[in-house]
Amino acid sequence: MERAIIEGVIKLIEDGVPLAELSIERVARTAGVGKATIYRRWSGKEAMFVDVLRTLEEPPAELPGTSMRDDLIVLVEHIRRRGLNMRSSAILHNVFAQMKSLPKLWDAYHKTVIDPQRRVSFEVLRRGVETGELREDVDIVLANELFVGPMLVRSVLRPDAPLDEDLPTRIVDLVLEGLRPAE
Amino acid sequence: MERAIIEGVIKLIEDGVPLAELSIERVARTAGVGKATIYRRWSGKEAMFVDVLRTLEEPPAELPGTSMRDDLIVLVEHIRRRGLNMRSSAILHNVFAQMKSLPKLWDAYHKTVIDPQRRVSFEVLRRGVETGELREDVDIVLANELFVGPMLVRSVLRPDAPLDEDLPTRIVDLVLEGLRPAE
Repeated sequence: MERAIIEGVIKLIEDGVPLAELSIERVARTAGVGKATIYRRWSGKEAMFVDVLRTLEEPPAELPGTSMRDDLIVLVEHIRRRGLNMRSSAILHNVFAQMKSLPKLWDAYHKTVIDPQRRVSFEVLRRGVETGELREDVDIVLANELFVGPMLVRSVLRPDAPLDEDLPTRIVDLVLEGLRPAE
Repeated sequence: MERAIIEGVIKLIEDGVPLAELSIERVARTAGVGKATIYRRWSGKEAMFVDVLRTLEEPPAELPGTSMRDDLIVLVEHIRRRGLNMRSSAILHNVFAQMKSLPKLWDAYHKTVIDPQRRVSFEVLRRGVETGELREDVDIVLANELFVGPMLVRSVLRPDAPLDEDLPTRIVDLVLEGLRPAE
Protein backbone atom coordinates (compact mmCIF):
# COMPACT_ATOMS: atom_id res chain seq x y z
CA MET A 1 0.00 0.00 0.00
CA GLU A 2 2.74 2.43 1.04
CA ARG A 3 4.68 1.44 -2.07
CA ALA A 4 1.61 2.04 -4.29
CA ILE A 5 1.12 5.52 -2.83
CA ILE A 6 4.80 6.40 -3.36
CA GLU A 7 4.63 5.12 -6.95
CA GLY A 8 1.55 7.31 -7.44
CA VAL A 9 3.45 10.39 -6.24
CA ILE A 10 6.39 9.58 -8.53
CA LYS A 11 3.97 9.25 -11.45
CA LEU A 12 2.45 12.67 -10.68
CA ILE A 13 5.88 14.31 -10.49
CA GLU A 14 6.92 12.64 -13.74
CA ASP A 15 3.77 14.02 -15.33
CA GLY A 16 5.05 17.48 -14.43
CA VAL A 17 2.87 18.34 -11.43
CA PRO A 18 4.84 20.84 -9.29
CA LEU A 19 5.47 19.67 -5.71
CA ALA A 20 3.75 22.78 -4.39
CA GLU A 21 0.52 21.64 -6.07
CA LEU A 22 0.81 18.04 -4.98
CA SER A 23 -1.68 17.95 -2.10
CA ILE A 24 -2.40 14.91 0.07
CA GLU A 25 -5.89 15.03 -1.42
CA ARG A 26 -4.57 14.73 -4.96
CA VAL A 27 -2.19 11.92 -4.01
CA ALA A 28 -5.06 10.04 -2.32
CA ARG A 29 -7.24 10.43 -5.39
CA THR A 30 -4.46 9.20 -7.70
CA ALA A 31 -3.66 6.19 -5.51
CA GLY A 32 -7.35 5.43 -5.06
CA VAL A 33 -7.21 5.57 -1.26
CA GLY A 34 -8.73 7.81 1.38
CA LYS A 35 -6.80 10.74 2.88
CA ALA A 36 -6.93 8.97 6.26
CA THR A 37 -4.91 6.07 4.82
CA ILE A 38 -2.14 8.50 3.91
CA TYR A 39 -2.21 10.33 7.23
CA ARG A 40 -1.93 7.00 9.03
CA ARG A 41 1.49 6.52 7.37
CA TRP A 42 2.86 10.05 7.12
CA SER A 43 2.49 13.09 9.34
CA GLY A 44 2.12 15.26 6.23
CA LYS A 45 3.18 16.06 2.72
CA GLU A 46 6.83 16.69 3.59
CA ALA A 47 7.31 13.35 5.37
CA MET A 48 5.74 11.62 2.38
CA PHE A 49 8.02 13.40 -0.12
CA VAL A 50 11.07 12.46 1.95
CA ASP A 51 10.07 8.80 1.62
CA VAL A 52 9.65 9.32 -2.12
CA LEU A 53 13.20 10.67 -2.28
CA ARG A 54 14.49 7.75 -0.22
CA THR A 55 12.93 5.35 -2.72
CA LEU A 56 14.73 7.10 -5.57
CA GLU A 57 18.11 7.59 -3.90
CA GLU A 58 20.98 5.24 -3.07
CA PRO A 59 20.62 3.51 0.33
CA PRO A 60 23.11 4.74 2.99
CA ALA A 61 26.69 3.51 2.56
CA GLU A 62 27.92 0.48 4.52
CA LEU A 63 31.20 1.23 6.23
CA PRO A 64 34.00 -1.34 6.11
CA GLY A 65 35.28 -0.21 9.54
CA THR A 66 38.87 -1.24 8.65
CA SER A 67 40.31 2.27 9.10
CA MET A 68 39.20 5.91 9.17
CA ARG A 69 40.63 6.33 5.68
CA ASP A 70 38.68 3.34 4.30
CA ASP A 71 35.44 4.54 5.90
CA LEU A 72 35.94 8.09 4.59
CA ILE A 73 36.53 6.82 1.06
CA VAL A 74 33.23 4.92 1.23
CA LEU A 75 31.41 8.00 2.53
CA VAL A 76 32.84 10.20 -0.23
CA GLU A 77 32.09 7.47 -2.80
CA HIS A 78 28.47 7.56 -1.60
CA ILE A 79 28.31 11.28 -2.43
CA ARG A 80 29.81 10.56 -5.85
CA ARG A 81 27.15 7.92 -6.52
CA ARG A 82 24.39 10.25 -5.43
CA GLY A 83 25.81 12.82 -7.84
CA LEU A 84 25.79 10.31 -10.71
CA ASN A 85 22.26 9.26 -9.78
CA MET A 86 21.08 12.88 -9.68
CA ARG A 87 22.52 13.49 -13.14
CA SER A 88 20.89 10.45 -14.72
CA SER A 89 17.51 10.70 -12.99
CA ALA A 90 15.35 13.50 -14.36
CA ILE A 91 12.89 13.14 -11.51
CA LEU A 92 15.54 13.45 -8.77
CA HIS A 93 17.02 16.44 -10.52
CA ASN A 94 13.58 17.99 -10.79
CA VAL A 95 12.64 17.38 -7.14
CA PHE A 96 15.91 18.81 -5.81
CA ALA A 97 15.58 21.87 -8.03
CA GLN A 98 12.13 22.53 -6.59
CA MET A 99 13.14 21.74 -3.04
CA LYS A 100 15.20 24.92 -2.69
CA SER A 101 11.94 26.90 -2.85
CA LEU A 102 10.16 24.59 -0.39
CA PRO A 103 11.86 25.24 2.96
CA LYS A 104 9.66 22.83 4.91
CA LEU A 105 10.56 19.93 2.61
CA TRP A 106 14.22 20.97 2.62
CA ASP A 107 14.18 20.89 6.44
CA ALA A 108 12.43 17.52 6.60
CA TYR A 109 14.89 16.04 4.09
CA HIS A 110 17.85 17.36 6.03
CA LYS A 111 16.55 16.10 9.37
CA THR A 112 15.76 12.59 8.16
CA VAL A 113 18.38 11.96 5.46
CA ILE A 114 21.33 14.37 5.61
CA ASP A 115 21.73 14.82 9.38
CA PRO A 116 21.97 11.06 10.14
CA GLN A 117 24.63 10.75 7.39
CA ARG A 118 26.58 13.62 8.91
CA ARG A 119 26.41 11.98 12.34
CA VAL A 120 27.92 8.81 10.81
CA SER A 121 30.77 10.93 9.36
CA PHE A 122 31.40 12.62 12.70
CA GLU A 123 31.59 9.22 14.39
CA VAL A 124 34.12 7.98 11.80
CA LEU A 125 36.26 11.08 12.39
CA ARG A 126 36.03 10.78 16.18
CA ARG A 127 37.22 7.17 15.97
CA GLY A 128 40.04 8.44 13.72
CA VAL A 129 41.20 10.79 16.48
CA GLU A 130 41.14 7.88 18.94
CA THR A 131 43.16 5.60 16.65
CA GLY A 132 45.65 8.37 15.83
CA GLU A 133 44.64 8.68 12.17
CA LEU A 134 43.32 12.25 12.52
CA ARG A 135 44.84 15.34 14.13
CA GLU A 136 43.11 15.88 17.44
CA ASP A 137 43.33 19.69 17.29
CA VAL A 138 40.83 19.89 14.40
CA ASP A 139 37.13 20.66 14.78
CA ILE A 140 35.26 17.52 13.67
CA VAL A 141 32.57 19.46 11.79
CA LEU A 142 35.18 21.38 9.80
CA ALA A 143 37.24 18.23 9.19
CA ASN A 144 34.12 16.59 7.76
CA GLU A 145 33.62 19.52 5.38
CA LEU A 146 37.22 19.22 4.18
CA PHE A 147 36.64 15.57 3.24
CA VAL A 148 33.10 15.74 1.81
CA GLY A 149 33.05 19.36 0.57
CA PRO A 150 35.10 18.90 -2.63
CA MET A 151 32.93 15.99 -3.79
CA LEU A 152 29.69 17.75 -2.84
CA VAL A 153 30.75 20.80 -4.83
CA ARG A 154 31.59 18.68 -7.83
CA SER A 155 28.42 16.60 -7.76
CA VAL A 156 25.85 19.20 -6.69
CA LEU A 157 27.13 22.63 -7.69
CA ARG A 158 29.02 21.72 -10.88
CA PRO A 159 26.71 19.35 -12.77
CA ASP A 160 29.09 19.20 -15.75
CA ALA A 161 32.22 18.26 -13.77
CA PRO A 162 33.66 14.75 -14.22
CA LEU A 163 32.96 12.27 -11.42
CA ASP A 164 35.82 9.81 -11.97
CA GLU A 165 35.93 6.59 -9.98
CA ASP A 166 39.24 7.37 -8.29
CA LEU A 167 38.12 10.76 -6.96
CA PRO A 168 37.08 9.61 -3.45
CA THR A 169 40.50 8.03 -2.82
CA ARG A 170 42.36 11.02 -4.26
CA ILE A 171 40.38 13.52 -2.20
CA VAL A 172 40.71 11.64 1.09
CA ASP A 173 44.45 11.10 0.64
CA LEU A 174 45.11 14.70 -0.41
CA VAL A 175 43.21 16.07 2.59
CA LEU A 176 45.10 13.72 4.92
CA GLU A 177 48.52 14.50 3.42
CA GLY A 178 48.04 18.20 2.72
CA LEU A 179 48.81 20.22 -0.40
CA ARG A 180 52.06 21.78 0.83
CA PRO A 181 55.12 20.24 -0.83
CA ALA A 182 57.11 17.86 1.35
CA GLU A 183 60.28 19.58 2.61
CA MET B 1 19.11 54.36 -17.71
CA GLU B 2 20.66 50.94 -17.26
CA ARG B 3 20.55 51.47 -13.50
CA ALA B 4 16.87 52.46 -13.66
CA ILE B 5 16.01 49.30 -15.59
CA ILE B 6 17.91 47.11 -13.12
CA GLU B 7 16.17 48.82 -10.20
CA GLY B 8 12.87 48.13 -11.95
CA VAL B 9 13.67 44.43 -12.22
CA ILE B 10 14.69 44.30 -8.55
CA LYS B 11 11.40 45.97 -7.61
CA LEU B 12 9.41 43.40 -9.61
CA ILE B 13 11.27 40.50 -7.97
CA GLU B 14 10.73 42.04 -4.54
CA ASP B 15 7.03 42.28 -5.35
CA GLY B 16 7.07 38.51 -5.79
CA VAL B 17 7.00 38.20 -9.59
CA PRO B 18 8.63 34.84 -10.47
CA LEU B 19 11.66 35.16 -12.78
CA ALA B 20 9.99 32.85 -15.29
CA GLU B 21 7.19 35.42 -15.70
CA LEU B 22 9.51 38.41 -15.89
CA SER B 23 9.51 39.12 -19.61
CA ILE B 24 11.51 41.86 -21.33
CA GLU B 25 8.14 43.37 -22.21
CA ARG B 26 7.08 43.59 -18.59
CA VAL B 27 10.45 45.03 -17.53
CA ALA B 28 10.21 47.66 -20.29
CA ARG B 29 6.69 48.63 -19.20
CA THR B 30 7.75 48.90 -15.55
CA ALA B 31 10.82 51.00 -16.38
CA GLY B 32 8.82 53.13 -18.80
CA VAL B 33 11.13 52.44 -21.75
CA GLY B 34 10.74 50.66 -25.08
CA LYS B 35 11.79 47.04 -25.54
CA ALA B 36 14.43 48.21 -28.04
CA THR B 37 16.15 50.22 -25.30
CA ILE B 38 16.55 47.04 -23.28
CA TYR B 39 17.74 44.94 -26.22
CA ARG B 40 20.35 47.60 -27.01
CA ARG B 41 21.94 46.86 -23.60
CA TRP B 42 21.33 43.15 -23.09
CA SER B 43 21.16 40.26 -25.52
CA GLY B 44 18.20 38.85 -23.59
CA LYS B 45 16.53 38.18 -20.28
CA GLU B 46 19.36 36.01 -18.92
CA ALA B 47 22.08 38.59 -19.57
CA MET B 48 19.91 41.21 -17.86
CA PHE B 49 19.30 39.01 -14.80
CA VAL B 50 23.03 38.33 -14.51
CA ASP B 51 23.61 42.10 -14.29
CA VAL B 52 20.88 42.32 -11.66
CA LEU B 53 22.72 39.68 -9.63
CA ARG B 54 26.03 41.51 -10.07
CA THR B 55 24.44 44.66 -8.68
CA LEU B 56 23.28 42.75 -5.60
CA GLU B 57 26.43 40.71 -4.98
CA GLU B 58 29.87 41.54 -3.63
CA PRO B 59 32.34 42.77 -6.27
CA PRO B 60 35.17 40.29 -7.07
CA ALA B 61 37.91 40.00 -4.45
CA GLU B 62 41.16 41.95 -4.86
CA LEU B 63 44.15 39.68 -4.36
CA PRO B 64 47.07 40.90 -2.24
CA GLY B 65 49.54 38.84 -4.35
CA THR B 66 51.92 38.46 -1.39
CA SER B 67 51.76 34.63 -1.39
CA MET B 68 49.55 31.81 -2.62
CA ARG B 69 48.30 31.34 0.93
CA ASP B 70 47.34 35.02 1.29
CA ASP B 71 45.56 35.01 -2.07
CA LEU B 72 43.67 31.81 -1.26
CA ILE B 73 42.52 33.21 2.08
CA VAL B 74 41.10 36.25 0.26
CA LEU B 75 39.35 34.01 -2.29
CA VAL B 76 37.79 31.85 0.43
CA GLU B 77 36.86 34.98 2.40
CA HIS B 78 35.03 36.20 -0.70
CA ILE B 79 32.91 33.03 -0.66
CA ARG B 80 32.22 33.57 3.05
CA ARG B 81 31.04 37.12 2.37
CA ARG B 82 28.83 35.97 -0.47
CA GLY B 83 27.35 33.41 1.92
CA LEU B 84 26.64 36.09 4.54
CA ASN B 85 25.17 38.34 1.85
CA MET B 86 22.94 35.54 0.58
CA ARG B 87 21.64 34.91 4.08
CA SER B 88 20.82 38.51 4.81
CA SER B 89 19.37 39.41 1.41
CA ALA B 90 15.91 37.96 0.82
CA ILE B 91 16.02 38.87 -2.85
CA LEU B 92 19.38 37.15 -3.52
CA HIS B 93 18.17 34.09 -1.67
CA ASN B 94 14.98 34.10 -3.71
CA VAL B 95 16.73 34.54 -7.08
CA PHE B 96 19.22 31.72 -6.39
CA ALA B 97 16.44 29.40 -5.27
CA GLN B 98 14.62 30.01 -8.56
CA MET B 99 17.77 29.82 -10.66
CA LYS B 100 18.11 26.06 -10.16
CA SER B 101 14.95 25.62 -12.26
CA LEU B 102 16.11 28.08 -14.94
CA PRO B 103 19.02 26.33 -16.68
CA LYS B 104 19.64 29.14 -19.18
CA LEU B 105 20.05 31.71 -16.41
CA TRP B 106 22.18 29.28 -14.41
CA ASP B 107 24.46 28.85 -17.45
CA ALA B 108 24.71 32.58 -18.11
CA TYR B 109 25.52 33.26 -14.46
CA HIS B 110 28.21 30.59 -14.44
CA LYS B 111 29.79 31.80 -17.66
CA THR B 112 29.95 35.46 -16.67
CA VAL B 113 30.43 35.35 -12.89
CA ILE B 114 31.59 31.95 -11.61
CA ASP B 115 33.92 30.85 -14.42
CA PRO B 116 36.07 34.01 -14.34
CA GLN B 117 36.42 33.60 -10.54
CA ARG B 118 37.51 30.00 -11.01
CA ARG B 119 40.09 31.07 -13.58
CA VAL B 120 41.52 33.52 -11.03
CA SER B 121 41.77 30.67 -8.49
CA PHE B 122 43.51 28.40 -11.01
CA GLU B 123 46.01 31.17 -11.75
CA VAL B 124 46.75 31.62 -8.03
CA LEU B 125 47.32 27.87 -7.66
CA ARG B 126 49.54 27.70 -10.76
CA ARG B 127 51.70 30.50 -9.35
CA GLY B 128 51.80 28.53 -6.08
CA VAL B 129 53.28 25.55 -7.90
CA GLU B 130 55.90 27.86 -9.46
CA THR B 131 56.85 29.42 -6.13
CA GLY B 132 56.98 26.02 -4.40
CA GLU B 133 53.98 26.67 -2.15
CA LEU B 134 51.81 23.93 -3.72
CA ARG B 135 52.60 20.29 -4.54
CA GLU B 136 53.13 20.02 -8.27
CA ASP B 137 51.65 16.52 -8.55
CA VAL B 138 48.13 17.77 -7.79
CA ASP B 139 45.46 18.50 -10.40
CA ILE B 140 44.77 22.27 -10.19
CA VAL B 141 40.99 21.88 -10.57
CA LEU B 142 40.84 19.37 -7.72
CA ALA B 143 43.20 21.47 -5.56
CA ASN B 144 40.84 24.41 -6.05
CA GLU B 145 37.90 22.33 -4.88
CA LEU B 146 39.80 21.30 -1.76
CA PHE B 147 40.32 24.96 -0.83
CA VAL B 148 36.96 26.45 -1.82
CA GLY B 149 34.70 23.38 -1.39
CA PRO B 150 34.42 23.41 2.41
CA MET B 151 33.39 27.10 2.46
CA LEU B 152 30.99 26.68 -0.46
CA VAL B 153 29.31 23.78 1.31
CA ARG B 154 29.00 25.77 4.48
CA SER B 155 27.67 28.93 2.85
CA VAL B 156 25.45 27.47 0.12
CA LEU B 157 24.34 24.00 1.17
CA ARG B 158 24.14 24.49 4.95
CA PRO B 159 22.40 27.84 5.41
CA ASP B 160 22.31 27.46 9.20
CA ALA B 161 26.06 26.75 9.63
CA PRO B 162 28.21 29.39 11.35
CA LEU B 163 30.40 31.53 9.07
CA ASP B 164 33.06 32.64 11.55
CA GLU B 165 35.63 35.24 10.51
CA ASP B 166 38.60 32.93 11.02
CA LEU B 167 37.24 30.15 8.81
CA PRO B 168 39.09 31.12 5.59
CA THR B 169 42.48 31.06 7.34
CA ARG B 170 41.68 27.82 9.16
CA ILE B 171 40.52 26.06 5.99
CA VAL B 172 43.47 27.17 3.85
CA ASP B 173 46.02 26.20 6.50
CA LEU B 174 44.40 22.82 7.21
CA VAL B 175 44.29 21.93 3.51
CA LEU B 176 47.93 22.96 3.12
CA GLU B 177 49.11 21.07 6.23
CA GLY B 178 46.85 18.02 5.97
CA LEU B 179 44.72 16.33 8.62
CA ARG B 180 47.06 13.44 9.34
CA PRO B 181 48.83 13.82 12.72
CA ALA B 182 52.49 14.85 12.49
CA GLU B 183 54.72 11.81 13.12
